[in-house]
Amino acid sequence: MNSWRLLVHCADRQGLVHRVTGVLFRSGCNVLVNHEFADLETGRFFMRTEFVGDIDPQPILEQTRRELPDDADVRLLQPHKPRVVTLVSREHHCLADLLVRHVFNELPATVSAVISNHPVLQDFTGKFSVPFHCVSHEGLSRADHESKLLAALKPYQPDYLVLAKYMRVLSPDFVRRYPGRIVNIHHSFLPAFAGARPYHQAFQRGVKVIGATAHIVTDDLDAGPIIVQEVMPVDHSHSPQDLARAGRDVEQLALAKALRLLFEDRVFLNGNRTVIFD
Amino acid sequence: MNSWRLLVHCADRQGLVHRVTGVLFRSGCNVLVNHEFADLETGRFFMRTEFVGDIDPQPILEQTRRELPDDADVRLLQPHKPRVVTLVSREHHCLADLLVRHVFNELPATVSAVISNHPVLQDFTGKFSVPFHCVSHEGLSRADHESKLLAALKPYQPDYLVLAKYMRVLSPDFVRRYPGRIVNIHHSFLPAFAGARPYHQAFQRGVKVIGATAHIVTDDLDAGPIIVQEVMPVDHSHSPQDLARAGRDVEQLALAKALRLLFEDRVFLNGNRTVIFD
Amino acid sequence: MNSWRLLVHCADRQGLVHRVTGVLFRSGCNVLVNHEFADLETGRFFMRTEFVGDIDPQPILEQTRRELPDDADVRLLQPHKPRVVTLVSREHHCLADLLVRHVFNELPATVSAVISNHPVLQDFTGKFSVPFHCVSHEGLSRADHESKLLAALKPYQPDYLVLAKYMRVLSPDFVRRYPGRIVNIHHSFLPAFAGARPYHQAFQRGVKVIGATAHIVTDDLDAGPIIVQEVMPVDHSHSPQDLARAGRDVEQLALAKALRLLFEDRVFLNGNRTVIFD
Amino acid sequence: MNSWRLLVHCADRQGLVHRVTGVLFRSGCNVLVNHEFADLETGRFFMRTEFVGDIDPQPILEQTRRELPDDADVRLLQPHKPRVVTLVSREHHCLADLLVRHVFNELPATVSAVISNHPVLQDFTGKFSVPFHCVSHEGLSRADHESKLLAALKPYQPDYLVLAKYMRVLSPDFVRRYPGRIVNIHHSFLPAFAGARPYHQAFQRGVKVIGATAHIVTDDLDAGPIIVQEVMPVDHSHSPQDLARAGRDVEQLALAKALRLLFEDRVFLNGNRTVIFD
Repeated sequence: MNSWRLLVHCADRQGLVHRVTGVLFRSGCNVLVNHEFADLETGRFFMRTEFVGDIDPQPILEQTRRELPDDADVRLLQPHKPRVVTLVSREHHCLADLLVRHVFNELPATVSAVISNHPVLQDFTGKFSVPFHCVSHEGLSRADHESKLLAALKPYQPDYLVLAKYMRVLSPDFVRRYPGRIVNIHHSFLPAFAGARPYHQAFQRGVKVIGATAHIVTDDLDAGPIIVQEVMPVDHSHSPQDLARAGRDVEQLALAKALRLLFEDRVFLNGNRTVIFD
Repeated sequence: MNSWRLLVHCADRQGLVHRVTGVLFRSGCNVLVNHEFADLETGRFFMRTEFVGDIDPQPILEQTRRELPDDADVRLLQPHKPRVVTLVSREHHCLADLLVRHVFNELPATVSAVISNHPVLQDFTGKFSVPFHCVSHEGLSRADHESKLLAALKPYQPDYLVLAKYMRVLSPDFVRRYPGRIVNIHHSFLPAFAGARPYHQAFQRGVKVIGATAHIVTDDLDAGPIIVQEVMPVDHSHSPQDLARAGRDVEQLALAKALRLLFEDRVFLNGNRTVIFD
Repeated sequence: MNSWRLLVHCADRQGLVHRVTGVLFRSGCNVLVNHEFADLETGRFFMRTEFVGDIDPQPILEQTRRELPDDADVRLLQPHKPRVVTLVSREHHCLADLLVRHVFNELPATVSAVISNHPVLQDFTGKFSVPFHCVSHEGLSRADHESKLLAALKPYQPDYLVLAKYMRVLSPDFVRRYPGRIVNIHHSFLPAFAGARPYHQAFQRGVKVIGATAHIVTDDLDAGPIIVQEVMPVDHSHSPQDLARAGRDVEQLALAKALRLLFEDRVFLNGNRTVIFD
Repeated sequence: MNSWRLLVHCADRQGLVHRVTGVLFRSGCNVLVNHEFADLETGRFFMRTEFVGDIDPQPILEQTRRELPDDADVRLLQPHKPRVVTLVSREHHCLADLLVRHVFNELPATVSAVISNHPVLQDFTGKFSVPFHCVSHEGLSRADHESKLLAALKPYQPDYLVLAKYMRVLSPDFVRRYPGRIVNIHHSFLPAFAGARPYHQAFQRGVKVIGATAHIVTDDLDAGPIIVQEVMPVDHSHSPQDLARAGRDVEQLALAKALRLLFEDRVFLNGNRTVIFD
């Protein structure tokens, strides 16, 4: 018996759960976990079902589609390991967490390569037998730098790009190549302190809690759909440097949680918001 | 169109979600929210469905039962306000929170009366036009005191008893009269510091986090199914009195959350654990 | 032996702790708790000392001032109960929490009166024997409404104004009458979602954590020094109304914490930030 | 100008802060941060001062001791990197976090070696150029195994032993060799679920929050002074395996926080509790 994930996103209407579970029931599948959500504001329906069954996926997909509205986005997947390329700059903590989980098979994905605009993390990446490419942005226009990035990415055909403290802004053109497939960790509790130097902004504002936000990258900087936010208390004794140091732990944690959710197909986009089944 | 809640608890088997949602679909009901959980360890299935429909409940109930295993516990309810009697001793904070929510119609229940073994909270309860009965335990055996309590409770026919810092242990005989229907707030992060004076125990042990636990009362003191646990950080500068003062906020919060879950029929018992659909 | 609090704020320089504690030591005082903080960025020094001693305060104050830079702000207080007037609009939860703590002597302050621009909370306030004044803003300019507010406030001579969900913006002229003495609870995790309808903003942005901020009111709306921030996790199933309901608990908690800190003289202003000794 | 830490622990009496800061003031030192705590229950006094100054430490130490009760424990240290040996078994996550921080110079300590009773983490440790010793317990009495451990430890002369998921109990004889210098991470919110298989215990009890505890190891298993506790919410859908997986993140975080506090000399023992200046 194989394990499967059925993912449905469509306009809401009566009886969708009954219809979809009917297809699985008639095929002799055994549902392990089922999540559904109907957004009453937008009229959208989301469903994620884990089941085991000795099935031929194509007829199941077709039968499911016949039960759903025409606009339905339906996917039927076996647990798989998406291919991931990680973009970094100089900071190591999120990358290190990813590589450790990768090397111990804790990440439901394969880290195919690390690409950076700086060479400093090359040796560290090498310890984990993951290819490292330095694509410097020095002296290049953004368009030229991104062309080089795309060339470096091409052989890996990544399912997802993970920006693990990659400190450069990606152009809309670049983002459009990986729609809904680029994840970023921003070192603030968005929408507070979007943009540069969020810990300095947080210090200046005198906040008592700092945070980190893992989100899908869209054209609009720091405004994409949020997957995970983590927070921690701080006080007047924290300098901007203390905030940055303490914040690294929540950045790392937020990104790790978001990646698990994403790679296990638990994240649905609902306009600029997310529906997450965990 | 009326609002309904369908609650199902039975042995797990294939197709239960499909079967139950089929009854509702064929009756023209519109499911708003659906939660289900199959416990793979115990083989039990739990489901809670909120729907709207212009239905006759009796046939729906019968049709649902026909789709389910014989052991199935099925309930079909309209949103209702259970009758609650609150038992207290001397501390006011959890009672005050309940009465404020009651008077502003924020509690999905009706506080029918307050019963205490001390008179100190009588005036305060009176401000909220809720009957207060003092049933002193002084000079009485536990059996005699509980007989008096039962007599005081009788006219109110409560659906639930809420122990809002009631500092006496109830006998198994008493508890059996309200099976699964007595909620207690214990001022520790159970199972740590069960029994008396948990904040003194927490101080002696030097913990860095304290908590409060809202749970269903069973024969076994402080060992019943847990509904909600809330925690807060503390440090070496907290005396036992400081812990008790700080702890009152989490006690109040944990109890309030648990009561909302319970009164909205979101809590299922699964042996000595709970399944909570929120 | 009486209890005292010595509060110092001045330019930082070498030996301040030694000098101040020397005054107390030579006077035979017994220091119970001592906090100090030197802000290396701004060069400001803050100190709060709790001590017991059978002292004459005036000479102690003078001796302390002689040991400190000329700009020093020094206060020597016995534990006291500041007079507080609470401003509210229609929402009851923060007010109810305040009044309950007031009536049980848990608040280190006296709630002298409640003033509202709506009559709805009059009956509730009356239960606690606290005067209630309705000062409607209907048909009045902001200046005229504030004149009426000031007239209503005058007989109470409040040390602090607590805005417990008071939904109108106060003018700079009004704020200047109570410099550093007006506390507000804003229903978002500032600086995110400043301004109106923060829960709707939070819903639209799809955040995974919401919060509340208790802060000192300054001329600049929602930008004053932050005392306490509290947060709670939310998910895609929360409507704006659910966020608002859930948020009330953190609003209430954040305001209660901030008031305890403020009324116990634990909050120092450091530009637009706070130093908090707890 | 050098940086120094002055650490004081003694019986409490009047004027201690004044006396100690006087020594530093007269020596022309500049205090950066000062923490003190007088435990009114036990009558013990604790103080930690960070200062800069061009001093000869021996006279400062002697002058400080002359100002303090005879029982005073006084230490005057420059920021240093204690030597640490890490003991592990099969689980990698806490070790990996330590080694990553070590290799990026984020840990205020030097990881001299890793010792394990299993060989599985040898290759991973090797990536970080840290010596790894496998000291198997198979076929050995506890005394014999510990003799071998002590022999392996000897050349490193560690200041601290870090038990990073070392799954064997150390004998009192062994513990006494490193009094107050062995740190353990226990995978529960102690004192709940002391002993073996805490996540299974937590699952059976149906708790809604799990935790991890970093503590000093004493003769009494899982009962030593607590440095840090971290918690996270869980629900009915978590199997024991899910709890264990989720728990690894809080274990890693709690241990990392505890080690920073310990290695920066911020942890004082106060009987079986800790005083922590952060």
